[in-house]
Amino acid sequence: MIALDLARLADEVDAQLAELATFSAAPAPAVERVLYTKTDLEGRAYVRSLAERAGLKTRVDPIGNTFFRLEGADRDAPAIATGSHVDAIPNAGRFDGTVGVIGGIAALRAIREASIVPARSLEVIAFTSEEPTRFGLGCIGSRLMSGAITPDLVRALRDAEGRAFEDVRRDAGFEGALEQVRLPEGRYAAFVELHVEQGPVLEAERIPIGVVTAIAAPASYALEVRGVGGHAGAVLMPARRDAMTAAAEIVLAVEHAAKSTKSADTVGTVGVVRVHPGAINSIPSRVHLEIDLRDTDLASRRDAFAMIEDAIARVQRERGVEIVLRTINEDPPAISAPAILDTIEASSRALDLRTRRMPSRAYHDALFMARIAPTAMIFVPSVAGVSHRPDELTHPEDVARGVAVLAGTMLRLAAAEVLHG
Amino acid sequence: MIALDLARLADEVDAQLAELATFSAAPAPAVERVLYTKTDLEGRAYVRSLAERAGLKTRVDPIGNTFFRLEGADRDAPAIATGSHVDAIPNAGRFDGTVGVIGGIAALRAIREASIVPARSLEVIAFTSEEPTRFGLGCIGSRLMSGAITPDLVRALRDAEGRAFEDVRRDAGFEGALEQVRLPEGRYAAFVELHVEQGPVLEAERIPIGVVTAIAAPASYALEVRGVGGHAGAVLMPARRDAMTAAAEIVLAVEHAAKSTKSADTVGTVGVVRVHPGAINSIPSRVHLEIDLRDTDLASRRDAFAMIEDAIARVQRERGVEIVLRTINEDPPAISAPAILDTIEASSRALDLRTRRMPSRAYHDALFMARIAPTAMIFVPSVAGVSHRPDELTHPEDVARGVAVLAGTMLRLAAAEVLHG
Repeated sequence: MIALDLARLADEVDAQLAELATFSAAPAPAVERVLYTKTDLEGRAYVRSLAERAGLKTRVDPIGNTFFRLEGADRDAPAIATGSHVDAIPNAGRFDGTVGVIGGIAALRAIREASIVPARSLEVIAFTSEEPTRFGLGCIGSRLMSGAITPDLVRALRDAEGRAFEDVRRDAGFEGALEQVRLPEGRYAAFVELHVEQGPVLEAERIPIGVVTAIAAPASYALEVRGVGGHAGAVLMPARRDAMTAAAEIVLAVEHAAKSTKSADTVGTVGVVRVHPGAINSIPSRVHLEIDLRDTDLASRRDAFAMIEDAIARVQRERGVEIVLRTINEDPPAISAPAILDTIEASSRALDLRTRRMPSRAYHDALFMARIAPTAMIFVPSVAGVSHRPDELTHPEDVARGVAVLAGTMLRLAAAEVLHG
Repeated sequence: MIALDLARLADEVDAQLAELATFSAAPAPAVERVLYTKTDLEGRAYVRSLAERAGLKTRVDPIGNTFFRLEGADRDAPAIATGSHVDAIPNAGRFDGTVGVIGGIAALRAIREASIVPARSLEVIAFTSEEPTRFGLGCIGSRLMSGAITPDLVRALRDAEGRAFEDVRRDAGFEGALEQVRLPEGRYAAFVELHVEQGPVLEAERIPIGVVTAIAAPASYALEVRGVGGHAGAVLMPARRDAMTAAAEIVLAVEHAAKSTKSADTVGTVGVVRVHPGAINSIPSRVHLEIDLRDTDLASRRDAFAMIEDAIARVQRERGVEIVLRTINEDPPAISAPAILDTIEASSRALDLRTRRMPSRAYHDALFMARIAPTAMIFVPSVAGVSHRPDELTHPEDVARGVAVLAGTMLRLAAAEVLHG
């Protein structure tokens, strides 16, 4: 349906990814663009400039979700959407999320430059705050868009410095009520996210295109361990109720729980540890922990969580500390729409590219878009499975293959008679 | 020798301690004055105003150690010094260190107001950076003054934000070469530090004055745990080399080592834990730990350290992480000068105050002053033994008793024939 110069596409998209990576709060090769900070806004502006040069129309919603649209023959029919995110955690690489935004714009530009008018309109969405760095909650933009969370929940969020979500949103220049972010079911006929695999499977099997059948069920929790502080020299060991030694037991219990379920896919991580007061000669009085727990199998994830709860009860009892657990999110898995999986495979076959069906262990905005539209994802290979690190790499030709499959898939979906309802 | 109105002294010193506590980066009742920050400088200025109102002469050395002097009959004879610090760790209280500075100034003022001219000059020293908060090393001022560390070591220090010691020193307005800080042995005939006990003994035994016979041997270490980062959803458990789970084992090993020596006095604390990158969905790639280890018995401290080293080796082997250990300091204990202990006891008897000889488990500037002068310390009771916490409390009448004993001790030491050499 559309003939693309893959070599030229690879060069262009790679150069754009490299330029986007220069908007970073961390020195290269590390990338850091935290929600509503200067570099996040710069990254958004750069992506918008690419979309507008590609002839796409821009709409920004009150939370900053940004929609780039190519009008189709039937402007009123539900559109076909793709998209991902440009925010980046501290010490990230340049491909996570960005491939789906810059690649989506490249796909729509190629369609427009080929003078193809799709049957339905096509959109690229750059979602706000896929990464949970600033407010502890990921996919804030797509959660709100899909009704998975309420505006009140977002308004109650505070960052590590105690700043309210609404204050930093307004300071970043985003206006309007959060109530306007929600989209009705039926707005999109389909949503297909292009993303790097962030795992080793496609590279190991030398398969260029992953067809994502389901997204693992993620859960995350915040723990506050409250002990008793004091002078590190003066309080003898038997008299202590050290919040950090208690927290260390929880960290090891999370690891043990993830390793002890029946599923090999259960993963548990404590990625955030903040110690109060944080002085070498003070016994820690309070420790804040954040736990990430996932599985493609919800029952195994629940088993792991039950083990963690048991450990929390034991540590409280044995160490005389108080531990307060707060659930940040406990999302169910998302199952992809079979019709879209078939379409991705057909588009890949047309380009002579092998495919493999696989789950996504990481979660993505597609997890929430699946609540309001038939959804699936396209994966491209990650070298050595590395992600969330500065040395994250997807080869340019693999990105270009993903973009080509995305363009073909979106055109086929736009032409399809019945996708939804 | 000197008659003091203890009730008036208690009120005055308590009001001054309360006012000093208002210069704080943390909301009351917490106190925080970190080296060379705005509140540290404000605290120094307030203390200087008290000293100058008391008629003392001020000298500030290049690192900010501040000397308040009352001239004696023989201006050339080695002086008798007291002093402590006004910097405060995050979430501190208002008595640690400050009692020795404000109390020292009150003692000299009382002597001057009684129109007593001491045989030798008397000085109060406000030492720079007794607390290790900013640069990871405590007693920077007294270490440099006593030659326990070199100016080059100080110049090599960096704070958590990577700023060089010399840059923050100059920004705070302190000038001159660090080489000028060192004092020769013989400058002071004696040094006596007044301090809150920071332990429960004096209060429990209802004894107002502790006579400190030795200061525990403190050691501190910085550990860098280097693992492999990655996406918390995508890297399965068996493939991980998580720096935080490795660090958690070290935290528990420090606790276990401190509890396992033959001495009941061994204490071990991990008060600083910094996780990189510190995102909920990222496997920690690096963790920075700081360990504080002490005992009045050097052999027991060494036994505990050997156990920690064994644990580090085991964790490296079992978890495939790299752990780099750096010694921040390994100080020997200080033994007080018997003649000063006798003088403190004589001064207390003259005031009808009971005394008790005891070690100091916390370390103080006196640990380093002992290298260049005969040294001892006077302790006053800490309610419930609490310190390094906002609810730290020493009753005003106990502070006043300590000031009275300090004044008597300094006058007796000034009058003594041979103290040194």
